[in-house]
Amino acid sequence: MKAPGPTMRALRSTGVAGCVELATVETPEPKPGEALICPTRVGICATDLEICRGYMGDTPITLGHEFVGVVVKVNPTETQGDRYAKLKGKRVVGSINAVCGICDLCRSGLSVHCRERTVLGIQGRDGCFADAFCLPLVNLHEVPDSIDDDRAVFVEPLAAAIHASQQIRLEGKPYITVLGDGRLGLLCAQVMQRLNASVRVIGKHTDKLAICEKWGVKHRLLSEIGLRGDQDIVVDCTGSPQGFADAMRMVRPRGTILLKSTFAPHPETPVDPALIVINEIQVIGSRCGQFPDAIDALARDQVDVVSLITRRTTLERGVEALRLAGESDQVKVLMDV
Amino acid sequence: MKAPGPTMRALRSTGVAGCVELATVETPEPKPGEALICPTRVGICATDLEICRGYMGDTPITLGHEFVGVVVKVNPTETQGDRYAKLKGKRVVGSINAVCGICDLCRSGLSVHCRERTVLGIQGRDGCFADAFCLPLVNLHEVPDSIDDDRAVFVEPLAAAIHASQQIRLEGKPYITVLGDGRLGLLCAQVMQRLNASVRVIGKHTDKLAICEKWGVKHRLLSEIGLRGDQDIVVDCTGSPQGFADAMRMVRPRGTILLKSTFAPHPETPVDPALIVINEIQVIGSRCGQFPDAIDALARDQVDVVSLITRRTTLERGVEALRLAGESDQVKVLMDV
Repeated sequence: MKAPGPTMRALRSTGVAGCVELATVETPEPKPGEALICPTRVGICATDLEICRGYMGDTPITLGHEFVGVVVKVNPTETQGDRYAKLKGKRVVGSINAVCGICDLCRSGLSVHCRERTVLGIQGRDGCFADAFCLPLVNLHEVPDSIDDDRAVFVEPLAAAIHASQQIRLEGKPYITVLGDGRLGLLCAQVMQRLNASVRVIGKHTDKLAICEKWGVKHRLLSEIGLRGDQDIVVDCTGSPQGFADAMRMVRPRGTILLKSTFAPHPETPVDPALIVINEIQVIGSRCGQFPDAIDALARDQVDVVSLITRRTTLERGVEALRLAGESDQVKVLMDV
Repeated sequence: MKAPGPTMRALRSTGVAGCVELATVETPEPKPGEALICPTRVGICATDLEICRGYMGDTPITLGHEFVGVVVKVNPTETQGDRYAKLKGKRVVGSINAVCGICDLCRSGLSVHCRERTVLGIQGRDGCFADAFCLPLVNLHEVPDSIDDDRAVFVEPLAAAIHASQQIRLEGKPYITVLGDGRLGLLCAQVMQRLNASVRVIGKHTDKLAICEKWGVKHRLLSEIGLRGDQDIVVDCTGSPQGFADAMRMVRPRGTILLKSTFAPHPETPVDPALIVINEIQVIGSRCGQFPDAIDALARDQVDVVSLITRRTTLERGVEALRLAGESDQVKVLMDV
């Protein structure tokens, strides 16, 4: 694969809420320490849709952070020498946080929360819904041949789901409710199904819950259950204020809510902190995970991600793809670049 | 001490927000398994003020849950036999949750969160701001002579502060900020000062922070510090939505906010759940503690509670005392009954 010419296509949020365009932009040059990557397949995530709605403010940005692609150029720093030269031409995935390495958080092992970080397609760094994009060399992970593009593109969200499963403390055999039957909920359910726990998915979509049936994961429609506070752990993957409010009513006193959803405060459904205190709930925020964990799980065929693909399209039809991905019958929409 | 006659005084929230009265009511009869207690000294807590404002709804209730008093009548169940007979005439404090003992939470060691519980002076059970009140015999703890009434009345809030210190996990020597220089903040600070941690109190009142000076606890005015996200643990004792919002900005990524404050959602200062996710914050609600821990700490003179007493008055002047306790220059207001 060759690098694109001086200009390329990029699917961009214009900064005006709801406005997305497939633009022609300059092909980026990797800075020292970075690689230029041509994505072959990319996935649309709820965060992309939130950014289109204005979640990260009004700065225009090229969208996208889930990809598998090929390294077409490496630009190592002097210290890196030729350590990364072998990455050229390789099929890679890449973690999305580009960090400074020198702030207090980087130095204390929390580099994923680097104070100066840019985040691919999310914050200060153009994303992978384009013919090419840049990431630090240190972020890249070669993909084994045994993991095809359809599965490799799930490494990022799968890593996030595995990270969630690592954040909860298991005592006895806990009851875990995964709230939300979307992309992330279904990944979390599959990963947590492997724990010593009783896992169920509570969702709103019969067709999405049918995927759980295939995996042998317990599932129910939200409308069919009572919200009795009896779950040891609730993983909120709904991305909605109502989801968090429901989670608060489902979790038992001294139980844990793992919050995977990002959403803006909503005046009609405010978060009630008194409930957290009275029931001594533990709420834990959960973001990105470790790529090697997800690559390993895919290589061992421990997780079925292909069943989540409900639509394939192309970057050329990216504007429509984003609209599609927001529809309630879609799970994962992939685009070929 | 003798039980009061057929009627007695009781400081009651009438159920109309802001309306409190010193009423004449029937003296209660202890049910099987309960004791009748005549309080000698009681303390006013922020929760009392919140209940007056309508925090628990519009059911009238006798206020108060911090007390030291004398058992004047015991009414054991048949199974209890005369095990509790020796409590009669004894000086006691008592935990405030009266539990059923048979629900799923009681049976799983979470009886403090009993689904059928009543809570002294808070929920479904008339409180201790009266000439007499009832509590289950199993809730009572005899107070050693070495702990005088002034100190014994702090057992309940001190137990809550100790419980908070037990809920946080210490790694290395963490930076702990106690946010709020009120009653509970100052108790938490003193207790946490004994941990292997660097503790500071951030407050708004020079005179209250001066008490920290006496204890050798670091302290600063909120207006003097920047809200950089660098604290490992923030204990929010402000009781205000703004306090929780400040705590979110003070805590480092993957840090812990211990939420002691109960407050209603506030439209102007909503809780932003996206911050919890992006910074992977852990928010832990914290309520009541174990009385023996607090009795022990007082008996060993590990905690100075007497410095927190800013006003002494009587139940007879209870309406005024509640108003006083809400003023910003007061820390702990006690009433003799």
